[in-house]
Amino acid sequence: MAEDSKSTKPLDNGRRKFLNTAGIAGIAGAGATLGLAGCNKAEQAPTAAAPAPAKPAAAGHSKVEVAPGQLDDYYLMSSGGHSGEMRIIGVPSGRTLKRIPIFNIDPMSGWGITNESKKIVGTKADGSVKYRTGDTHHVHGSYTDGTYDGKYFWVNDKINNRLARVRGDYMECDKITEIPNVQGFHGIFPDKRDPVDAAINHTTRVFCGAEFHMPLPNTPKNWKEGTGYACLLTCVDAESMEVRWQVKVDGNMDLCATSYDGKLAALNSYNTENGQVFADMMSAERDACIFFNVERIEAAIKAGKSFTVGDSKVPVVDGTREANKDPKTALTCYVPVPKNPHGVNISPDGKYYVCAGKLSPTATVIEHALVLKWFNGEVKEAQECVVGEPEIGLGPLHTGFDNKGNAYTSLFLDSQVVKWNVAAAIAQYKGDKQVKVVLDRIDVHYQPGHSYASMGETKEADGKFFMSGNKFSKDRFLPVGPLHVETEQLIDISGDKMVLLADHTAHPEPHDAIIVRRDLIKTKQIYTLEDHPLHIKGFDDTGIKRNGNKVTVRIMSVAPTFTPSEFVLKKGDEVTVIITNHDKVEDLHHGFAIEYHDVNMIVGPQETKSVTFKVERPGVFWYYCTHFCHALHLEMRGRMVVEA
Amino acid sequence: MAEDSKSTKPLDNGRRKFLNTAGIAGIAGAGATLGLAGCNKAEQAPTAAAPAPAKPAAAGHSKVEVAPGQLDDYYLMSSGGHSGEMRIIGVPSGRTLKRIPIFNIDPMSGWGITNESKKIVGTKADGSVKYRTGDTHHVHGSYTDGTYDGKYFWVNDKINNRLARVRGDYMECDKITEIPNVQGFHGIFPDKRDPVDAAINHTTRVFCGAEFHMPLPNTPKNWKEGTGYACLLTCVDAESMEVRWQVKVDGNMDLCATSYDGKLAALNSYNTENGQVFADMMSAERDACIFFNVERIEAAIKAGKSFTVGDSKVPVVDGTREANKDPKTALTCYVPVPKNPHGVNISPDGKYYVCAGKLSPTATVIEHALVLKWFNGEVKEAQECVVGEPEIGLGPLHTGFDNKGNAYTSLFLDSQVVKWNVAAAIAQYKGDKQVKVVLDRIDVHYQPGHSYASMGETKEADGKFFMSGNKFSKDRFLPVGPLHVETEQLIDISGDKMVLLADHTAHPEPHDAIIVRRDLIKTKQIYTLEDHPLHIKGFDDTGIKRNGNKVTVRIMSVAPTFTPSEFVLKKGDEVTVIITNHDKVEDLHHGFAIEYHDVNMIVGPQETKSVTFKVERPGVFWYYCTHFCHALHLEMRGRMVVEA
Repeated sequence: MAEDSKSTKPLDNGRRKFLNTAGIAGIAGAGATLGLAGCNKAEQAPTAAAPAPAKPAAAGHSKVEVAPGQLDDYYLMSSGGHSGEMRIIGVPSGRTLKRIPIFNIDPMSGWGITNESKKIVGTKADGSVKYRTGDTHHVHGSYTDGTYDGKYFWVNDKINNRLARVRGDYMECDKITEIPNVQGFHGIFPDKRDPVDAAINHTTRVFCGAEFHMPLPNTPKNWKEGTGYACLLTCVDAESMEVRWQVKVDGNMDLCATSYDGKLAALNSYNTENGQVFADMMSAERDACIFFNVERIEAAIKAGKSFTVGDSKVPVVDGTREANKDPKTALTCYVPVPKNPHGVNISPDGKYYVCAGKLSPTATVIEHALVLKWFNGEVKEAQECVVGEPEIGLGPLHTGFDNKGNAYTSLFLDSQVVKWNVAAAIAQYKGDKQVKVVLDRIDVHYQPGHSYASMGETKEADGKFFMSGNKFSKDRFLPVGPLHVETEQLIDISGDKMVLLADHTAHPEPHDAIIVRRDLIKTKQIYTLEDHPLHIKGFDDTGIKRNGNKVTVRIMSVAPTFTPSEFVLKKGDEVTVIITNHDKVEDLHHGFAIEYHDVNMIVGPQETKSVTFKVERPGVFWYYCTHFCHALHLEMRGRMVVEA
Repeated sequence: MAEDSKSTKPLDNGRRKFLNTAGIAGIAGAGATLGLAGCNKAEQAPTAAAPAPAKPAAAGHSKVEVAPGQLDDYYLMSSGGHSGEMRIIGVPSGRTLKRIPIFNIDPMSGWGITNESKKIVGTKADGSVKYRTGDTHHVHGSYTDGTYDGKYFWVNDKINNRLARVRGDYMECDKITEIPNVQGFHGIFPDKRDPVDAAINHTTRVFCGAEFHMPLPNTPKNWKEGTGYACLLTCVDAESMEVRWQVKVDGNMDLCATSYDGKLAALNSYNTENGQVFADMMSAERDACIFFNVERIEAAIKAGKSFTVGDSKVPVVDGTREANKDPKTALTCYVPVPKNPHGVNISPDGKYYVCAGKLSPTATVIEHALVLKWFNGEVKEAQECVVGEPEIGLGPLHTGFDNKGNAYTSLFLDSQVVKWNVAAAIAQYKGDKQVKVVLDRIDVHYQPGHSYASMGETKEADGKFFMSGNKFSKDRFLPVGPLHVETEQLIDISGDKMVLLADHTAHPEPHDAIIVRRDLIKTKQIYTLEDHPLHIKGFDDTGIKRNGNKVTVRIMSVAPTFTPSEFVLKKGDEVTVIITNHDKVEDLHHGFAIEYHDVNMIVGPQETKSVTFKVERPGVFWYYCTHFCHALHLEMRGRMVVEA
């Protein structure tokens, strides 16, 4: 900041006051009722007395700033919560490089307006998009050999229960699949290789966890009694995006992790009692991290041991505890963890899952090899798969990893990130009372949810950056009215001590994200003309065709002109405008809007898009280029004439 | 950047290659045809041979970075182009602090989904929003005593021709007005005081320029001949947001500036020939900057010298050159400027307008006092109001000002910002051949459109920061597919030499913006319960009411619960859900989404919102909080039961 800056540091008591009102007050009440007693507050959370303020960390600043003309080192691929979009953000700069419209309507690109996007989103009988809303929580990318291959990214919608895929070359959504018989579709994770076929060392499945239990099939009949409620895990084919199979489970799933050998998918599950009201949901002593044996599930389906639910044709197998008592034939393994887990992540060496939840101040370390042994009958109780349970702080949720065996867990209630050593946690669990498990903690601002290390969900975890997606920003930014922006705080984890580098803003509401090394992303800059079956081949291919009151207008754009620059319709016509952009210069998009007709879309170099609408109002209406293209961009327009 | 960073500097030949393909090539052709000969390229634009690369400007970096916990110094209130939104960005950090949905549909906030927002946007017969698209170009704020008062901000929509207002306390859109009988509604500017009543030293009018000429009234009858085409300037009441009056003019207007004394609105106008095709639009030697005499226009309307157009009841007066030949009674003054101007700005001392356009390498300086004298008959020719015409570079568009008498103009074709001195330009025009007019130039990346100085459109211009909204970023950021992000480059103008501080990204497509000192913005953090007539007063006021198949559900939210947590409907019901958020903690919003029902909205502390939809599918559907609120946020949900 300039020396004459008027910047002021927010008063530190603001932080604690806020934590008290919004965070801890609520859980303190719940904790009293629900047995939140395992945490020595004084030891774990330095929040009681005046805490050390978050330092400006001047030493770290040069690591954030990306000078003009320089490029970022990483892509942050982030979910956008109920904005319905996915986002690409540069790391360390925090600059938003792209918003990818998915479950929302985007007039900038024409998403939800063009015929091409509507086909992906789905339409109602009247031709409008089926859904305008979505609640994205998790973004994950496709893997080859245990690291990102940049081919696909997936993101969920929790409102209307859809899985969307973004292709990594164009960074655009190309498929959306509605998941049958689930509600509150929350966590996703692609597999990393096939559990059986060693040649398939890349992603071919995406696992989807459903959080809200619901009647199967969905009928209001016994809603009050709550009988017949369950949740399904869903497996979607990564290429075809069709639903392969589902598994019925006990409890409500949210997060998901997959093993590096392709054998297991892990989902944390709360309310394993399958209760309908809060008291019932809290009757058991522990919940579970559920492990799904992919090979066995697919064999069971092949053997016809499946059923269907309602109108859905998707095969469903029974993964409840009751139906999977014999480990040697079990499809699922329920490893007990403290109540209400809300996070499961796997370490980059593929050996350990870390599962945590806000009602216990601990993280549960589960060993992958032991879970496989349980499925082989070599471990008696699923509980024995747990190899560590360190106390790390209040409200632990999500864990990222570096390349030195350390874990970084967000502490929701403490508003901190805690660094701890996995091997030390295991040694401590075995009885070593001297070992130092917790290595460092750092304040974040405020109420962190997910957090993510650079490359931390791959075998190439590099231990450089860590980001904390925080739910409240309060006094960290200039006030902009009742609704505050959220934060993505950037932390340097390359040294022994964590250093807070930057408060990046995040449009509500960031949930999960992944930090991808930039050399793994390989995008295309130009579309392929022939990819669209209706593309305009050249000037001779432009013009107007009428079929009754259905009119097709074929327009070619070459900066700074539309050809044709005028076309005549009749009131009541249903018109389809098809535009092919014949420009070949990188980034040279044209926009196409029609005055008073609520139409806008952009068409990239060599791309074709179309839009269909009715004309009901006689007159002359200009169409024009809305996306800057050329020195004569303002002159790039034409007239649509609607005769009475 | 860290030392081990993999960042690379883009090759400098990329810059010039790009300028050649996308920018200069096009205009070079146009220039040859249209007489672009006045510019000594070698002297004005150092682009021919290997230019100096944009330096990382290491010295300036500390001026960009806003350390964690520190606040920005300014609010950038920016238009969002065809994204249809307004944006608030922190300066100097470049962090996006808020997206304000206006002409788009926003599932995050529920804009275009809630009944309250639909009432503002307008609806079709089927209850859906009338428009889902908009193309915002200009944002300006309300004034008191020549500087921002933070009360209102306005932004235009060029597609569907609407003016929207954002209230500065909540930073939300509260009114949208459709402008009759205009197309390509482009430039806006609020007045700064009343032209007559000295007591009114604040904004009461907003002027709106229409760019695309159209038949008045809009009929397809003579579309080909183009007779009866014209553009209207529109005056909207700042408080009521009703259209006060319109003025018919020659030519196509885009940008607007207003005088500090309230007397004049200035709009640059191209195609003053009123041509319909390109050749006709270029037949005159000069176009014009049109000055509107507000007092006389309102007197003429009061005197009944107005007409109406089509169905509109808005009084229209004739401001064409033909009808305003006598300066002493003229409503408008056409000051000649080089062809195709695309920018007019007024200096902070209120003395000079600077008008420029891409077809001449000059800026035209027009003296305010002389225009007033012209209206008094004391100046013979409007041309005499011009007091400067410095050659500043290729493609000059928009001008910002510091507090030292300097102007900063974006050079679209040179991809530069040029700093020049207004007094020196006037001296040069008077004959001083020694005076140095151009003081500095700096490369920007690439193709700048609008640019804005900190407080530069107020009498409190402070000469600290300048931002250049650039249309192409090309190689400045990590690639993200065919569509690149745009840039807002931040420049330090506090010294003699301009220093490029940062490449901030801008979601397509930034047009105009204003940089507002932070102490001038005074937002509210909590809504007022009683402001919504249907607000739920307390628990006793919640519940369900049925009237035939119309059902009203009144829900109260207090973190982490909705009351009621269940309600029962019948298939075919039209249900209105009203939610009042009784939380009082700052930023404590709740989201409300219903599974499979495409509903999402947020409700801020003490706010009420409602949504109406039909239920057609029997079953149990969870509703849940989508906007993080509390430690038990994930548990904040309830069930909507739809009986068959």
